[in-house]
Amino acid sequence: MQAVNSISARASQRVALHFALFQIHSYHEINIKCRKLNSSPKRLVLACDAWYGVAHGCTRKLGMKICGFLQKNNSLDERNIIGPLKEPQKNQLSWDHGERAPRCRRPDTDFSNLFARDLLPAKNGEEPTMQFLLEVVDILTNYVRKSFDRSTKVLDFHHPHQLLEGLEGFNLELSDQPESLEQILVDCRDTLKYGVRTGHPRFFNQLSTGLDIIGLAGEWLTSTANTNMFTYEIAPVFVLMEQLTLKKMREIIGWPNGEGDGLFSPGGAISNMYSVMIARYKYFPEIKTKGMCAAPRLVLFTSENVRTACCLIIAQLIQLKTQHHYSIMKAGAALGFGKENVILLSTDERGRVIPADLEAKVIAAKQKGYVPLFVNATAGTTVYGAFDPINDIANICEKYNMWLHVDGAWGGSLLMSRKHRHKLSGIERANSVTWNPHKMMGVPLQCSAILVREKGILQGCNSMCAGYLFQPDKQYDVTYDTGDKAIQCGRHVDIFKFWLMWKAKGTVGFQQHIDKCLDLSEYLYKKIKNREGYEMVFQGEPQHTNVCFWYIPPSLRNIPDGEEKREQLHKVAPKIKAMMMESGTTMVGYQPQGDKVNFFRMVISNHAATTSDIDFLIDEIERLGHDL
Amino acid sequence: MQAVNSISARASQRVALHFALFQIHSYHEINIKCRKLNSSPKRLVLACDAWYGVAHGCTRKLGMKICGFLQKNNSLDERNIIGPLKEPQKNQLSWDHGERAPRCRRPDTDFSNLFARDLLPAKNGEEPTMQFLLEVVDILTNYVRKSFDRSTKVLDFHHPHQLLEGLEGFNLELSDQPESLEQILVDCRDTLKYGVRTGHPRFFNQLSTGLDIIGLAGEWLTSTANTNMFTYEIAPVFVLMEQLTLKKMREIIGWPNGEGDGLFSPGGAISNMYSVMIARYKYFPEIKTKGMCAAPRLVLFTSENVRTACCLIIAQLIQLKTQHHYSIMKAGAALGFGKENVILLSTDERGRVIPADLEAKVIAAKQKGYVPLFVNATAGTTVYGAFDPINDIANICEKYNMWLHVDGAWGGSLLMSRKHRHKLSGIERANSVTWNPHKMMGVPLQCSAILVREKGILQGCNSMCAGYLFQPDKQYDVTYDTGDKAIQCGRHVDIFKFWLMWKAKGTVGFQQHIDKCLDLSEYLYKKIKNREGYEMVFQGEPQHTNVCFWYIPPSLRNIPDGEEKREQLHKVAPKIKAMMMESGTTMVGYQPQGDKVNFFRMVISNHAATTSDIDFLIDEIERLGHDL
Repeated sequence: MQAVNSISARASQRVALHFALFQIHSYHEINIKCRKLNSSPKRLVLACDAWYGVAHGCTRKLGMKICGFLQKNNSLDERNIIGPLKEPQKNQLSWDHGERAPRCRRPDTDFSNLFARDLLPAKNGEEPTMQFLLEVVDILTNYVRKSFDRSTKVLDFHHPHQLLEGLEGFNLELSDQPESLEQILVDCRDTLKYGVRTGHPRFFNQLSTGLDIIGLAGEWLTSTANTNMFTYEIAPVFVLMEQLTLKKMREIIGWPNGEGDGLFSPGGAISNMYSVMIARYKYFPEIKTKGMCAAPRLVLFTSENVRTACCLIIAQLIQLKTQHHYSIMKAGAALGFGKENVILLSTDERGRVIPADLEAKVIAAKQKGYVPLFVNATAGTTVYGAFDPINDIANICEKYNMWLHVDGAWGGSLLMSRKHRHKLSGIERANSVTWNPHKMMGVPLQCSAILVREKGILQGCNSMCAGYLFQPDKQYDVTYDTGDKAIQCGRHVDIFKFWLMWKAKGTVGFQQHIDKCLDLSEYLYKKIKNREGYEMVFQGEPQHTNVCFWYIPPSLRNIPDGEEKREQLHKVAPKIKAMMMESGTTMVGYQPQGDKVNFFRMVISNHAATTSDIDFLIDEIERLGHDL
Repeated sequence: MQAVNSISARASQRVALHFALFQIHSYHEINIKCRKLNSSPKRLVLACDAWYGVAHGCTRKLGMKICGFLQKNNSLDERNIIGPLKEPQKNQLSWDHGERAPRCRRPDTDFSNLFARDLLPAKNGEEPTMQFLLEVVDILTNYVRKSFDRSTKVLDFHHPHQLLEGLEGFNLELSDQPESLEQILVDCRDTLKYGVRTGHPRFFNQLSTGLDIIGLAGEWLTSTANTNMFTYEIAPVFVLMEQLTLKKMREIIGWPNGEGDGLFSPGGAISNMYSVMIARYKYFPEIKTKGMCAAPRLVLFTSENVRTACCLIIAQLIQLKTQHHYSIMKAGAALGFGKENVILLSTDERGRVIPADLEAKVIAAKQKGYVPLFVNATAGTTVYGAFDPINDIANICEKYNMWLHVDGAWGGSLLMSRKHRHKLSGIERANSVTWNPHKMMGVPLQCSAILVREKGILQGCNSMCAGYLFQPDKQYDVTYDTGDKAIQCGRHVDIFKFWLMWKAKGTVGFQQHIDKCLDLSEYLYKKIKNREGYEMVFQGEPQHTNVCFWYIPPSLRNIPDGEEKREQLHKVAPKIKAMMMESGTTMVGYQPQGDKVNFFRMVISNHAATTSDIDFLIDEIERLGHDL
C-alpha cells in the first residue's frame, strides 16, 4: 500500500471521482486490484483504484466522506481531470472495466454546460437530446449487463440516514436552481448504484423478480408513447392490445369463447378490490346509489393465509401470530364492509382452505341474519404457495348463491403450463379472477388483470352514468373506450410490455418459463428436505415455487424442542438476512406464520436463476448462519 | 406518374416494404415527393416513394391491402431486398429520411434468426441483448425527434376494425409460437406509427401533454430498475426520494415545516379516493372495522363541475345535460357512501363553487339528520379551469367541523408559480390535497400525489394491523417502509422521473414552464375573444390554461339565436374534431356542459407549444369548419 500513499492528491481526486461518477466496483474487484498493485502495468490507475478501494470499502465511513468531498469539488470539471487517465480508444462516458459489448462511438458532448432547457423542444435541441438519451441508455445497458453478471452484488446496502446524509456526493435534496445534465447523469448512475438489482439471478426476495429484455423494451416504448388507456382516441393500439390479451387470458381460464370483461389495474390489491365491488354491484346494485346501509349486513370469506408479496412483509413487520389475508381485508375496510365482516377461513397444514369450514361459516353467518356475498379462493398463497380447492369451493358458492373470486395474482400464471394448470382446476367456474403477469410470468411491474365472466358488469358497476349506449358525436366506435369501466380516470398503459413479451415468447415460451421455475423449486426442495440443519415448514412437495424452511445452526441442533429453541430459532432468519443484505450476495424473504417462528420463504420467478444459484443460496445461508 | 407505373414489381415491393418497416411518411412529404418526381436524382427511390404514397395515401384502403401483402411476403428477408437501395454509410436499421443526429455505428445483427430466448440470460446473450436494446432505442429516439417536428402528423387515425384486421401486416393477435426479434422490432415501430403523439406541439387534447426528455429518461431508468415502493429494503433510493419530494410539496402548500403525510398513487381519482377514506377514518374510525352502517348517514360535497380529463370524455360521451364531479362521485360509490350522498354544489358562471350554496346544503343535510363529513374544493376544474374559493370554503369547513380536501390534480401545480399561486390562496388550510405533476408540470404519466396535513393518519386508515411500532427483526429503520399506508400492495415507482425533472429544472424551471403555458393561453384568449366567428363560453380571462369557445361557421352566423342554431352548433365541434383526427394535424377536446352545447376546450400543458401552434390551431379550425 506504499504506492497508495505516494500518489498525489490531485491524482487521487481524479480517480476517486472517476469511480464515483462512472462505475460501481464490487469489493471483490477492488481487493483483487489491491493485490495486483505492484505488478500491474497500469500502476497509477490501479494504485488509485486501490486507494479508492480502501477509502470506499475498508474504512467505509471515512472513505465516503472523502469521496463525497472530492466529488463535490470536482463534479463540474471531471472530464478534464479524467482525460489523461483514460484508456485510449474508449468512449469517455462508457469507460467501464467490464466493457465487452460493442459501443456506440459518438462525439464527446460536454454535459457540464448543458441543462434541461437546452434539450428539445429548445431550438437546436435535437443534437443534445439525442446525445443525452444515448448517455442514459449507456448507463442503463451497463446496468442490465451487470444485473445478469453473478460477480455483481445484488445490492450495496446503506441505511436511510446514510443515503439522506448525501453519500459520496449523492444528494437527494431538491433545489430551486437547475443542475447540469452532467449532474443528472451522475444522479442516474447513483440511483442505480444504491438500489437493488431485482433482475439479478440471485434476487429471490419478492414474487416479482427478473428483468425480461423484451418486457424492458416494451416499458421503454410505453414511456416514450406517454399516453393513457382512457379512450381509443388517445391510445388506439394499446386499447386493442388490452382487449385481445384479456380475451386470450379468459380463453385460457376456460370461459366459453373467451367472452367476458376485464381491465389491467395498478396491482393485485386493486384487482381484488374490483372483484368485491363487482360482486356487490351484482347482488345489490342499489348500494352504488344509496350506500352500504341500503343492504343487509354483507360478509366476505377468504383464506386466513397471507397472499400477496407485501402481505408477507407486513407479516414480517408485525410478527404475526394469527394469519390474515390482507388484500381482501383491505378491500373490505375501504369499500365500507368493515374488517369484521371479512371472515377468515381455516386452512389445512398445507395452507389450503378447508371447504367444510367455509360451509360451516356460511351457515353460521346466515343464522345471524348476515348475507354471505363473496368468497375468495386463493390460487397460490404468498407464503406457502397453496392452491385452494376451487371446485369444492365453487360447489358451495353455487349452493349458497355467492360470488366466487379466484385470486390468482401469484398462481394464475400456472394456467399457461400444461403440466401445472390442473392445480387451478375449477377456475372456469369463478365469476372473477385476478391474475398478475408481473409475478410468475416475469413481466415488468406493474401488470395485473382483473377478469370477469359477465360482460358489461364492470361498466355497470363503475360508470357514473347509467345507460349511455349511444354516442353520436365521435367518429369511431366508442365501445372501445374503457374509461368508464375503471375506478381510475387516467389509467397507465400496462399492456404493451406484456403483449410484446407474448409475441416474442409465444404461449409456449411462458409455459417453458413457468415449468423451469417450478423445476428449480423442486430441485431446491429435494436438496434440502433431508439435508442436515434444515427443516421444512410443511411436508410434501410445494404446489408452487414457494419452498418454506428453517435453517437450524449447529448451536441449536442439540437443543430439545421447546420454547427456548423456538425463541432462538425465531432470530436466525432475520440475522442471516441482515448479513446477506450487508454482504449483498443474495436476498430471500422470511416471516413467521401462525404459530411458526421466522422461516425462510424461497420463491423463484426469475428466468435467469439456475441450479447453481440455488446451490449458492444454500451455501450462503450456511456460511452466514453456521456460527449463529 | 408515368414513372410509377414503369417500376418493376420487385422494386415496388422493396420500397413499400422499406417504408412499412422503417418510417412514417406524412402525406405532405409524399405529395412533395410526387411533385419532384421527374427532377430528382434519386429517381427510382422517389418513384417508389410516390407509388407507395399513392398506395398508402391517395387510395388508402387498396393501398393498405397491397402494402400489407407486400410486407407479409417480405418481412423476413427485407434486409437483402432493401440493401441495394440503401444510401451508403447509413446504418441499415436507422436509415431515415429525417436523419440528422450523429448515429451509433454498429455491426449489423440479423434479427430475423434471433428470438427472445437468445437474449440475456441466455448463454452468449449479452451481445444480441445490447444490439436489440440499441435498435429499440433507435426506434424510440427517432420517434422522439419526429414528435417535436411540426411536419410530422399528430396521429395517423384508423378505426378499430382497421387495426384489428391487421393493417399493413400489423397483426395484433397473439400466438403460441414465438416471433423473431426482427418482427418484434417491426411491432414496436407499428405500435408507435398507429398511436397518438401526445408530445407533439399541436396535441392539445388532454390535460397531460408533452414529452419531457428528462422525465422520459427517468421513466426508462425506472423500468430498468423494475422494483416497487413497498419497502425500503427493495427500493431504498426511491422511497427516500418520495419522502423528500412529498415534504417539498407540503412546504409549497404551506403546511408548517412541510410536516404531514402522503403517497404517490396511480392517478388523481385514486388520490381523491384516499382523501375520502382518510376523512372517514378521522371522524369515524370504527367504520374500518364495522363498516359503513356503524356510522350515521355521511354526506360528501363537491362542485357540480367536471374535474378530470377523463370526466371530460365521459361528459362528451353522454352528452351531459347536468354537471357532475366524477372522481368524488366514483369514490363515494366505491367506498360505500352511495352516489346520492355525494351532494353537488352550485357554481357561478365561471364554474366556481358558491360558498353560500355549500353552507345552505350543509345546514339542510344536518336538518335531515345526516352528517356532513367532507368537502372537496376543486383547484382547476377540467373544463373551465376554475378555482373554487378555498378560504371561504375553509371557513365553512371549520364552522361545521368538516374535512377540507383540495383537488388540485389539474391546478395544484400553479403553486409553483409566484405569479399564479394566489389562485389557490387558502390551500394551507386544507386537510388533504391531490396534486398531479403528470398534468400541468409535464411529468410523464403516471404521477399523482395525495398529501395529508396530519402525520400518521394514512397508516392508521389503511394498515391492517393497528399499533405496530416495534419491529425488532429488520436491521434498518422500518418507518421508511410505506406499504401499509397504501391500499395497494405493490406500488409502481412514480417518483423517480419527477425527482429527476425537479433536479434538472429546479423549482424555477417548473415556474417558468407554468408561466409560459398560462401566457400562451392568454395569447389564445386575446386572439379569439373578439375575432369573427368565435364566441367565448364564459366571460373574462381564464384562471387556468383552459380556454373554452365555440367556433361558429359562416353558415350559422346569421341564424338568430334559438333552438335551431343550438342544434346546428352542437354538431360543429364534433365534425371539426373528426376532420382534425382524419387529417392528423392537431387535436383538441370538446364537450357540452350544463345547458351549453358542444364547445372546444383548449388546454396547454405542453412545453413544446408556441404561439405559432396556437395560430395553427385557429387556422385549422377555420379551414376545416369554414364550409360546415
